[in-house]
Order: sequence, then structure tokens, then C-alpha cells
Amino acid sequence: MARGSDRRARRRAAGGLNQLPWRQVSNPYPPLEILSADQLEAIHNASMRILEEMGIEVMSDEARRLLRAKGARVDDAAQVVRLDRGLVAELVAKAPASFTLTPRNPDHVLTIGGNAISFGLVAGPPNVHDRVRGRRAGNYRDYCDLVRLAQSFNIIHLIGNQVVAPVELDAETRHLDCYLANVTWADKVYHCTSIGRQRALDGIDMMAISRGITREQMADSPGVTTIISVNSPRRLDGAMCDGLMAMAECGQSVCITPFTLMGAMTPVTLAGGLAQQNAEALAGICLVQAVRPGCPTIYGAFTSNVDMRSGAPAFGTPENVKATLAAGQLARRYGLPYRSSNANASNAADAQATYESAASIWAGAMGHSNLLYHGAGWLEGGLTASFEKVVLDAEMLQEMAESLVPIQVDEASLALEAIAGVPPGGHFFGAPHTMERYETAFYAPMLSDWRNYESWEEDGAKDATERATAIWQSLLESYQAPPMDPAVSEALQAFVARRKEELRAVAA
Amino acid sequence: MARGSDRRARRRAAGGLNQLPWRQVSNPYPPLEILSADQLEAIHNASMRILEEMGIEVMSDEARRLLRAKGARVDDAAQVVRLDRGLVAELVAKAPASFTLTPRNPDHVLTIGGNAISFGLVAGPPNVHDRVRGRRAGNYRDYCDLVRLAQSFNIIHLIGNQVVAPVELDAETRHLDCYLANVTWADKVYHCTSIGRQRALDGIDMMAISRGITREQMADSPGVTTIISVNSPRRLDGAMCDGLMAMAECGQSVCITPFTLMGAMTPVTLAGGLAQQNAEALAGICLVQAVRPGCPTIYGAFTSNVDMRSGAPAFGTPENVKATLAAGQLARRYGLPYRSSNANASNAADAQATYESAASIWAGAMGHSNLLYHGAGWLEGGLTASFEKVVLDAEMLQEMAESLVPIQVDEASLALEAIAGVPPGGHFFGAPHTMERYETAFYAPMLSDWRNYESWEEDGAKDATERATAIWQSLLESYQAPPMDPAVSEALQAFVARRKEELRAVAA
Repeated sequence: MARGSDRRARRRAAGGLNQLPWRQVSNPYPPLEILSADQLEAIHNASMRILEEMGIEVMSDEARRLLRAKGARVDDAAQVVRLDRGLVAELVAKAPASFTLTPRNPDHVLTIGGNAISFGLVAGPPNVHDRVRGRRAGNYRDYCDLVRLAQSFNIIHLIGNQVVAPVELDAETRHLDCYLANVTWADKVYHCTSIGRQRALDGIDMMAISRGITREQMADSPGVTTIISVNSPRRLDGAMCDGLMAMAECGQSVCITPFTLMGAMTPVTLAGGLAQQNAEALAGICLVQAVRPGCPTIYGAFTSNVDMRSGAPAFGTPENVKATLAAGQLARRYGLPYRSSNANASNAADAQATYESAASIWAGAMGHSNLLYHGAGWLEGGLTASFEKVVLDAEMLQEMAESLVPIQVDEASLALEAIAGVPPGGHFFGAPHTMERYETAFYAPMLSDWRNYESWEEDGAKDATERATAIWQSLLESYQAPPMDPAVSEALQAFVARRKEELRAVAA
Repeated sequence: MARGSDRRARRRAAGGLNQLPWRQVSNPYPPLEILSADQLEAIHNASMRILEEMGIEVMSDEARRLLRAKGARVDDAAQVVRLDRGLVAELVAKAPASFTLTPRNPDHVLTIGGNAISFGLVAGPPNVHDRVRGRRAGNYRDYCDLVRLAQSFNIIHLIGNQVVAPVELDAETRHLDCYLANVTWADKVYHCTSIGRQRALDGIDMMAISRGITREQMADSPGVTTIISVNSPRRLDGAMCDGLMAMAECGQSVCITPFTLMGAMTPVTLAGGLAQQNAEALAGICLVQAVRPGCPTIYGAFTSNVDMRSGAPAFGTPENVKATLAAGQLARRYGLPYRSSNANASNAADAQATYESAASIWAGAMGHSNLLYHGAGWLEGGLTASFEKVVLDAEMLQEMAESLVPIQVDEASLALEAIAGVPPGGHFFGAPHTMERYETAFYAPMLSDWRNYESWEEDGAKDATERATAIWQSLLESYQAPPMDPAVSEALQAFVARRKEELRAVAA
């Protein structure tokens, strides 16, 4: 049985950790559709009116030129591009419904689309926190440690954009240090920073080098992704356009994600927020397809709300849950892979962080997200990467992955003989049916403590967040870098050295 | 707009708490079906074979007599009842698909069935815990305080069986003290203890007195429910049978819940656990319908797993999630209202308690549970009622309730005019569309803290569990008992006094 050997395989533990083996997680169940067909069309039609009548500000001459060539109406003075619905449909239809991303370890290939769901490491926080050292500014040591943790957890499938900002490094060249950490301390798919062309191209080149192929060869077998954040409302800035076009030219995956907090960047209503998000996401996807028809593209959604008393962002809220479910329906309407997030607005890796994250994870899974970005480690509305939260999230993600494994129903599992063999009021502990299966029958958690109160208290009465500390510490202690051909390692080092020199020459 | 006034109504705060108004929560979306039609039938058929071939031990002469009279095959020496599938189908078909429960405050009527979902207070723990006073044995003071909290939270719809055991009170008469607390400090539906006939009848009578009607009149308008826990595997004990029959004779709601931890009380496999649970639940439902055709009945499921290394019970696990979803399908197959639970096995009101509870709540909602029992306050696998956990759960339940409110899509909410009025890169904070709606646009949490890190830290850096303490303290301080006619109060006191006297006379 594949299932049985999978289960036993997890006993090959990282850092003594009893985790699930690496696998592509899949959600075989129908998605939860919270919009009626009419509502879905009403939101679609509103988005089309936004694209046709109001347009999107596209702050790149080249991007506007490309879209005009495809038939868009362009006002260069205002930098506004208007797209008719026929053109949108035509361009969006060129995007594949599903594709793969292959990193340097081909066993860690990911499918993006269909029923597949992949989980990413948190991306972008300026700060980092753990219970031992407290809260501090992002730095390269923590960057590398968090990438090592992402490599250690099989349930973390890819490394997002900068897990923390290494603020002590030169801002012009730090993306090279980050890519080097991504590709050295892990062998998984990673994210290319798309602020400008060159940062994206550097990430593509380094993934190509690590795979022993050329940038051109990688166009036929993409290995990296990027997130293009629309500056909502209705603005694609120049640097983002440049990054988008560089990625698309190279045939790498581009996810367009309007960062749309209702009440701030969109109307305060869900329908309006979704209509605007949809228009913005589709505009970006049209640009990708204008650059390179068939380029892997992901429909990104990040519609949540602000606290209307303070303007503070909120995540994992009921409105965020509903927007996440509805956005999945929109993505499926266009046959596009779908990205959501595992976010929360708590200042500590506590119960609030957990219930807001749980809502994000469940909404993502029920809405058939194909890429749960910020899957592990996000805290403080994205301002801090938390070591303990990485562990908490990894536990929650594993439990979601196992919850999505279909129930086996056959004669052996229905167990009528075993039931007949235990008298009323008896128990199944020693039954042969149990003995044959008990080692692999149930999910074994990494973090949950199921001992009785007395044993737990005697052992220090540690709560889950405290126990998480010991887990990331143990994983880092026992961490072993994934093997890399020394020639590849040298080539990567040489690439980084050369590119840093070039960038310094430009700056000088 | 009903919605708008609902939202504003929540500003009528209990203890200064900005909570949602009382309402019947409804889940308008299709349930998540994780069993294929074939799998569902295979489990059904296995259950039928259990009922036909192995039977259920029914440790009550009267119950066996009733079932024999309906056509069951009864072995009185072994106390085993075998039910053919035709008989099961015939009896189960008599149970209503939906019914209402009306407590002394008719505004707090509950619908059990259909799309309705109701949340109950935790039931049964021997211990109680809060962060101020620590862990202690159950007692009547805490019992009353927890009922006051249940009354204070609009999202808690009903009071389950003994929220904590008041161990200092006489075991023979404490049910009377508990009912008196339920009906005095709250005006919601409550649970009758069904260990024996008399405890159930006392609960029914006290609800009837509080409503100013007779026991007989209440048969046409049920006001209480009970949970009959099957002693799995395949045993209905005598006291439970007596309680069940007393409730059914009076036309009150009976929920049959096999407490089936896979690997201990059932086979270690989900299919086997579900087949056995289904057989046991249906056997109890048949007995209810044999007593009183058409009596309100609920299909209860509590299939989770044990930790196979220690035998410790576990809840909110992936197996528990899958069983909860599958059991919903089984209940719907028979047209029965469905009960699940909000459970966890954590020893603290921490992140583990939260992610296990979140999984239980989401699985219940996605599986179309009509009654989420133990909805608020459960800790330690049911061994402790936690004041802080009541607050955490109330927050999670409110957020689930709001997540189930359909998205409004119409011209005003699509907000095209508002979108056209904000330039690219602008914001919607001051837009008229926002100003008209911002006060009621989003769910306002009770517990979540969305301030920035600095403000939160300055205010003591309190995590969610610490903040929960202040909430229950404030609710108890500002608590006001729901009004009761002094004549009713006197009648209840007199009833309790008389019944205690009778029970002491029996014991003497």
C-alpha cells in the first residue's frame, strides 16, 4: 500500500521530528461556492466595466505599448489602459489552467492548478521574532535560518519573497544574497523579487544555474514564481511592470495579486472589493499574456478589510474568509490557478494568530486555493516573521493536508469481522484488526500535546507556543543542507560576485 | 435594511462588549461531501449488517419490549436487540427532519435541522479552570458563573449537560440545583440529564414551569434536549435507556451520540468507526421512535481517534475532521438533524486548543452540523471547563456565524460609482460610499487585538488568552439575570424543595 509506506516514511525524521513525508497536497473535494451564478456574473460584469470604462494606470511605456498592440485603448498622457471584455477574454484564455514549477531538486516539483495546493513560507516582513531572542529587525542570519526551517518542514513547499528583509545588507544587491540562501539552504521552488527587471532575471538565472540548465531552457520548464502586487486602486507601477515583463519573457510563473483591503484600497463592500480585485488581477494577467502567450499565471487574491475605527489591516476575518472563497470562484470562472494567503493580524503567536490563521487556511482550502502564500510564519499583519509561528503553521498545514486525504472504504476498512469480535462494552485495543494498523492509522502531530493534565504539568506546563520553540531549535540544530554539486555551488558564487560587481559599477 | 439594524443592534452591549445580536445562525451553502455515493452506501450497508447480525445490547427490559413490539428480534438472555434494515428505515423515517426548541424566553427559540446551526456551552467536565484561580474541582459557584457567561454571550444558543460537575452537592439531588441555575441565570434552551427517568423528568418539568405550561403542553412545543451517549461498542445501558424513554414519552428532543474513539471503542479505521457509529446512533433513534413516533431526534456523532501510543483521546484531529464531515452525510441520508462537537485535547487555552477547536468548528460547519455541542469552553479532552476558552470559542463562533452570512451583490454594493470616484493609487477612506457604510461594514471582534505592535506592547503585550480573562470578568461584573415573574420563581423553588424532599425520603 502506497499509503502505508508513506506513513512509515515519515518516521525518517528531520531533527527527530515525526513529520509527514514531502508530497504534493491535493484537495479532491468540490470547492465551496458562496456566490450564486448570477452574483458571480454580476461581479464579472462590474470588473469588465472597470476595465472598459475606468481603466488601469500602467506606469510603464513598454507595458502600455504591448497592450495597445493587442488592441487595448491607451491614454499615454494619463498612463491609463482600457481593456474591452472581448480582449480580456481572449488574453486570459491563453493562460494555462495548470502548470508545474521545478526547482533544483526535481522531487520537489510543484503542480500549480487543478486540485493541487502548495504552501509557501511567509514573505516580506521587515521584522523577525522568536521567544528566545525577542523582536528584532530582519537580518541575513535569521533569513538563512528561516530558509533552513522551510527546507526542514516537508509541508512547506516553496519559499516566498524575502522571508525577512536583511536590512544590514546593501539594498541594491541583497536580492542576490537572498537568492543564494534560497538555493543553498533549500532545494525547493522560490520566489523572484520583481521590483524591476534585473532582480527578477537574477533570480531566474540562479535557479537555472542550480538546475544546470540555461535561462532559455528554463522557459520550457519554469522553476520560479513571482507575486506582482497591484498598487490598488487600479495602478500597476513601473517597477512591478518591469519585473512582470522580465518574468513573462522568460516563461516563468507570475501571480498577480491586488492587495485590496476593503475600506482603504477598495470600496467598503465585498462585492465592490471583489469587482475591483478582479479587474486589477485580470489586467495584470492580460499583460503577462501580451508578453508571452501561454505563460504560467496565477490569479492572486488578498481582499481583506481594515478596522474601520483605526484603519489597521485585519486578516482571517469573516470578510477575508468570504472574499477568499469568492475569489476562488472568480479564478475558476477564468480557468486560472488561484492563490490565497495564510494571514493574521495578531502581535503574538497566540490563540488570535491561530484562529485567524485557521480561518485563512480553511477558507483557502475550501475555496480551492492552489497556492497558499505566506503559509507559515506570518505575524503582525505581515510585519514580522515568527519562528514559533512557522512551527504552529506547519502543524496546521499538515493537519489540513491529512484532512484532505480521502476516506478509504472497503471490506477491510469497514471491519465488520473486527466489530463482531468485540463484545458490547468491550474495546478494540488488542484486536488483530487494530494491531495490524495502529502504527499508521492516525495522523501523529508534531506539536500537539495529548498527555493528561498531570503529566503535562509535571513536564513544565508548556503551552503550544512554548513547545514550538523547542521544535525550531531542534530542527536548526540537526539541519543538514541539501547536497549540491561543488561546481554548481561555485557557479552560483561566481554569478553573485559578478552581479554584485556590475551593480556596484552602475551605482558608482 | 435588516442587516444594517442588526449590526447597529450589537452596539447594545453586554458588559460593554461589542457582540453580535442573538440570532439563529444559518449555513446557506452546500455541505462538503467527502464520501462518494458508493462509499456512503457501503457504510450504510455495513451498519445494517451490524444491526441485523450482531445487534445492540439494550440493558433495559422495557426498551427491549418496545423494540420487540415494533418487530425487532430480541434475545432477552443476552439483552441483544437485532433490527432488520426495513424496520430501521421505517422507524427512522418517523423522525422529523427539523424541529424547534422553545425555552422560557421565546425570543431564544432554536431551529434544529435544515440549514440552522446552534452552538452549545461545554458540558460534563469534572474540573474548571481560569487564569486567576487556576484549576479546581467543579463546584456550584463556577457552575452558576459559567451559565451566566452562556447567557451573556448571544452566540451561545443553549446550555448543555452540567457545564461542570458541582461535586460538593448531593449527587442524588444536584441535577435539581443545576436545572435551577440553568433556568434562573439564563433563559435559553437547556439539556436534561438522562441518567435515569427521574432526572430527565425533573428537567422537563422545570422548563415547563418556567414557561408557564404543563409537561403535557410542552410535548407539542419541546423546550429541552438530551444527549444519550451510547456506551460503544454496541451498548445502551439501562439508565440511558430510561432517560431516553422518559424524554421521548414527553416529546422532548433526544440526541443519540455514540462516543466512538477509533482504536478504542471502534475499529481503528474511519470506515469501520463510521459504520459502528451509524449502527449505534440509528439503534437509539429507533428506540426513540418506538416510544413516540415523530419525537424530535438528533443524529449525534463523536468519532475521533486515540493517540495509539498512549491511548489518550484526541479531538480536532484530521481523522475527527473527516469523521465529522462523513457523519453529516450519513445524517442527511436519513433526513435527520445532525450534532457534532467543538472539542480539543489541549491542557491550556493556547494555540493547540485553538487550532483543534477551529478544525472542529470548521468541520462542523462544512458538514452542516445543526448542533455544535460543547461549542464554548471545552478543554483537556472534556475534563475541564475553561473560562478563557469560553471567550476564545465565542469569538471563533461569532466569526464562523458571520462567515456564513451571504455576500450581498447589487448595484450599491458593487460600488462602480465609488470606484470611478477614487483615482488610481488613491484611497476610499473618505469616500461617501465608505462613510455611509463604514460603521457596520465589517465584523467587529470581541477579543482580537488589531493595534500595531508598539501600542499593543505599551498596553502590556497581552496575548489573546490573557485578554480573554478581562472579558469574562467584565461580563460577570455587569451580568444581569434575565427577568422572571416572581410567581414562576417561587414555583421553581417549591418544585426543587419538594423534589429534594422526595429524593431524600427515597434515599433514607
